[in-house]
Amino acid sequence: MDLTTITSPSFLKSLSKSELETLAQDIRTFLIEKCSITGGHIGPNLGVVELTIMLHKMFDSPKDKFLWDVGHQAYVHKILTGRASQFDTLRQFKGLCGFPKLVESEHDEWETGHSSTSLSAAMGMAAARDIKKEDNYVIPIIGDGALTGGMALEALNHIGHAKTNMIVILNDNEMSIAPNVGALHSILGRLRTAKEYAKAKEEMESLIHKIPVVGGKLAQTAERVKDSLKYLVVSGVFFEEMGFKYLGPIDGHDFEALETTLNYAKNVEGPVLVHVLTKKGKGYKPAEEDTIGTWHGTGPYKMETGDFVKSAVKGPAWSSLIADTVTKIATDDNRIATITPAMPVGSKLEGFAKAFPNRFFDVGIAEQHAATMAAGLATQKMKPFLAIYSTFLQRAYDQVLHDIARPNLNVFIGIDRAGLVGADGETHQGVFDISFLRALPNMVIMMPKDENEGQHMVKTAIDYDGGPIALRYPRGNGLGVPMDKELKALPIGSWEVLREGKDAVILTFGTTIPMALEAATQLATEGIDVEIVNARFIKPLDEEMLHRIMREQKPVITLEEAVLAGGFGSAVLEFAADHHYTATIDRIGIPDEFIEHGNVNQLLEEINVTTDETMARVRKLVPLKK
Amino acid sequence: MDLTTITSPSFLKSLSKSELETLAQDIRTFLIEKCSITGGHIGPNLGVVELTIMLHKMFDSPKDKFLWDVGHQAYVHKILTGRASQFDTLRQFKGLCGFPKLVESEHDEWETGHSSTSLSAAMGMAAARDIKKEDNYVIPIIGDGALTGGMALEALNHIGHAKTNMIVILNDNEMSIAPNVGALHSILGRLRTAKEYAKAKEEMESLIHKIPVVGGKLAQTAERVKDSLKYLVVSGVFFEEMGFKYLGPIDGHDFEALETTLNYAKNVEGPVLVHVLTKKGKGYKPAEEDTIGTWHGTGPYKMETGDFVKSAVKGPAWSSLIADTVTKIATDDNRIATITPAMPVGSKLEGFAKAFPNRFFDVGIAEQHAATMAAGLATQKMKPFLAIYSTFLQRAYDQVLHDIARPNLNVFIGIDRAGLVGADGETHQGVFDISFLRALPNMVIMMPKDENEGQHMVKTAIDYDGGPIALRYPRGNGLGVPMDKELKALPIGSWEVLREGKDAVILTFGTTIPMALEAATQLATEGIDVEIVNARFIKPLDEEMLHRIMREQKPVITLEEAVLAGGFGSAVLEFAADHHYTATIDRIGIPDEFIEHGNVNQLLEEINVTTDETMARVRKLVPLKK
Repeated sequence: MDLTTITSPSFLKSLSKSELETLAQDIRTFLIEKCSITGGHIGPNLGVVELTIMLHKMFDSPKDKFLWDVGHQAYVHKILTGRASQFDTLRQFKGLCGFPKLVESEHDEWETGHSSTSLSAAMGMAAARDIKKEDNYVIPIIGDGALTGGMALEALNHIGHAKTNMIVILNDNEMSIAPNVGALHSILGRLRTAKEYAKAKEEMESLIHKIPVVGGKLAQTAERVKDSLKYLVVSGVFFEEMGFKYLGPIDGHDFEALETTLNYAKNVEGPVLVHVLTKKGKGYKPAEEDTIGTWHGTGPYKMETGDFVKSAVKGPAWSSLIADTVTKIATDDNRIATITPAMPVGSKLEGFAKAFPNRFFDVGIAEQHAATMAAGLATQKMKPFLAIYSTFLQRAYDQVLHDIARPNLNVFIGIDRAGLVGADGETHQGVFDISFLRALPNMVIMMPKDENEGQHMVKTAIDYDGGPIALRYPRGNGLGVPMDKELKALPIGSWEVLREGKDAVILTFGTTIPMALEAATQLATEGIDVEIVNARFIKPLDEEMLHRIMREQKPVITLEEAVLAGGFGSAVLEFAADHHYTATIDRIGIPDEFIEHGNVNQLLEEINVTTDETMARVRKLVPLKK
Repeated sequence: MDLTTITSPSFLKSLSKSELETLAQDIRTFLIEKCSITGGHIGPNLGVVELTIMLHKMFDSPKDKFLWDVGHQAYVHKILTGRASQFDTLRQFKGLCGFPKLVESEHDEWETGHSSTSLSAAMGMAAARDIKKEDNYVIPIIGDGALTGGMALEALNHIGHAKTNMIVILNDNEMSIAPNVGALHSILGRLRTAKEYAKAKEEMESLIHKIPVVGGKLAQTAERVKDSLKYLVVSGVFFEEMGFKYLGPIDGHDFEALETTLNYAKNVEGPVLVHVLTKKGKGYKPAEEDTIGTWHGTGPYKMETGDFVKSAVKGPAWSSLIADTVTKIATDDNRIATITPAMPVGSKLEGFAKAFPNRFFDVGIAEQHAATMAAGLATQKMKPFLAIYSTFLQRAYDQVLHDIARPNLNVFIGIDRAGLVGADGETHQGVFDISFLRALPNMVIMMPKDENEGQHMVKTAIDYDGGPIALRYPRGNGLGVPMDKELKALPIGSWEVLREGKDAVILTFGTTIPMALEAATQLATEGIDVEIVNARFIKPLDEEMLHRIMREQKPVITLEEAVLAGGFGSAVLEFAADHHYTATIDRIGIPDEFIEHGNVNQLLEEINVTTDETMARVRKLVPLKK
């Protein structure tokens, strides 16, 4: 069918099984084609086609509430709720968001992006329903990977005890972004093979009847033996222990199995967990054959072959550069251990993992545990490298504060995807870390101007033994600069003058340095001579250089791809105020709003973090001083 | 014995059972006496006397590593490691810390204060041991309450899967700070009564042998029935499922049971969990009889009677004032639901819980879940009140950012214990929240000057429907001001001039207002006329008033009991810079260091947040402008 004609999921109610199957096929074809052009989370969405169709057929959205955990698997849901025509703009500036979004549709009941939030939000929605004595289903759909996040486990613990009515769909695809780890993974593995146990159920029941019936104590004991059988019959003992009725596992691509089980689930009192087995990438061979998560989220690809469309890049991927440099140093430094919260692929740590398997720890989606485990390693004079995306480091804020910075432990935090990340949008922008880390005593924060400085900063971080040190690096690739053979540690808190200039000074770091240099070049043609400083240490500041700059009374412009509130520019303001300097200081950076999805350059344009704006600010200030 | 003569725990090795019992009695007498004068966490420590003695007898600290989760139960450990003589200074300025502290002793391997960190840190220590091929035990001691914290569950999941050698002591006293909630609590409850099941083990085994032996499939089935018995014999099925060997439950006050079980645990390969039942307050009647957590941590008390020594207070306790006002409004506003992460007593929510049991949610130690559950309630047009200590809100930073502020949901966050908290020390100071919340778009942050304004701010928060709103209030009591009968909402972002003055202006809020007023009074006698502004909205700022102040070109002093980096003073600097004002701005607040334990006034003196310093700053700036 023409999917763009769908306006509401109500048409599903009357579809026959064969019509549902045709629809599933149409949706797969649509997704594979659309994502080949825009890129997107194709793998997870191909896995939930039948599940999403059947959920919308069996329940009444928006009265019944679906909460898509993480949210990258909601494309089918978006199609069925009338948004197919917007897929040409998927994840693009002002286009369809790659995650559920309250403003997009009444069917998007919960906004996400980060993992493991759906159960808590569902508990809130279910509690509201019960307080208001309303009658509707609340249905979080959570992956096996997201289930290991601490907050999901906190929620299970609460929901199971409160006995709140809720249907949790466990979408078990045996792989989150990377192959799963953890005891829960093993539990799910056992459940997957538990079907054969279930088949033995009847035999066992007949067997138990053959136990000699005796009086008194032995009869009691026999009862207990019978009780114990529930652990075979009801195989989801972990979830049962947590207070959930466990149903499954069922084939998530089998409409009939889904229908039967969901029907049953609807009538269960209290919380029920439906264990659904799905296959990521189902129906698209290149994605089906993926074993390491390449097809979890992709850029554009050739639909026929599954070959990725290569974009022109200059330098190495930042994640690779940092990970490879750590790996190189780790060859001669066995204090180095690496921890990743479920991002071995994204953080390009496969090389480290292969070279040093006993010093590599993928802890699953568990940022809090990852950070404090790093602290534990550091107490034993190890040098842990915690590789974590800026946006996910938010989950470990208290652990960085309380367990790392407070006891001043030597943990090296690699903050990947720092700055705007683009298509993933507002849930994933790495723009808060400077504000939240800068307020922590003992923290060192740095960001390199290019990949050559980046490799030296890795050495700087590993050599440093004064406490925690964070190295921010952006999404994407380096500039293609020549690389030094020899690594060298930078003096902590040292900045670098990239261009001399007498009329004004721009203090900047990382990705905005090229912007500043370009502004200076253009301003030079207007006769304005701008100094550019690579403020590569965001904390501590280069106080010696700042004193020199402030004494020169040149106007100062700070430029950063991070939030202005409490950011680097504020640190410069604080320095100036504390020393009673009167230089004019103007700040460019991310305003007090959440930044949506889109191409990074479009986003920067939208929020006025550009070469033009930098030039305009300089022009405004320079006459003041002349 | 004279406990102050202990220098090392090695003396325990040779003690007989009766000597151990005498020692336990001596320690209890010592703790009850010392804490009656200093206050402290007497209840938890009386519960772990035998357990701590036996741990130090059976293991070799510091080679073997004890990690005291939360850490408030480490007094006995401090006594046994040579610190009894310092107990007169417990939790006092420059005195013995109430928590383990790396700098205090080589026996304090892990610094804590916040809950649920021990398993992650232990995993780091055990990993370091295994990498270095060393040979020692790693022994986290975690309470049943702390186990529900998400990061502890993340760690269980990782450790159980990694099969790392570790002895986890589950110190189950059936009550964390408040009575426990959650499915895990129910699991522990079942385990507590599982002893009788264990007794039936032999009977059952004999019974199973009576099952007719047949060939083929039925034999296989019989095997499985036997397998299923492990769920009776090994009663800790939850922990077994998580990959741990479960031992227990055992009586934590029985030296022999402890010795036998710990001996066994020492020889288990992989992670083992020893379930120890203890009684909080054991051996001190008033504490033993406590059912709601009053004796968890106390101020001074009369040893003979257990009566608390009342300190002279002027106004109502801040927690009570806020909670009671919420409760009052909730009578006519059934949108209001209250969530606490295990702090119903500390946050004085018993009244609300009693009045509105179906709108009250104690979710256990689970700050992340608490915040996102509040978000879920808000999506359904409820008005959740999330009562949380400032220091614990750090745990929910990402949830406030990603799940509340980003979708701009109407969640009312009551930030209790904001500012310095005193005796609990650096792990508990509530001084970071302004820096980490101010950078979030959509946040409103306020703090009242007194309890009367506090009650109006509750109404302000409940009436507000523009997104998240946080109300900070300090530990301790109000000023004893008259209370208005009628509640009124304050205009969002409105400040208030408390004192006019032409020479300088002090912008301040909350607890530092009396300091500023006192400074102004004293400066007036010197002929310096200072304006005092109650900057009760930290975000948004009162821009109209700021424009007026900046235009007047008076020197500005900001004064706050919060960290300076990115704090309120920085917000004022940012405003001035953005509008190119040239007024001199000087900031007083908490410097870039962690603030240890002690009386709040002593601490403020130590860091120069005082009336004298305020006066000195004003004096310095005023001549500049005259």
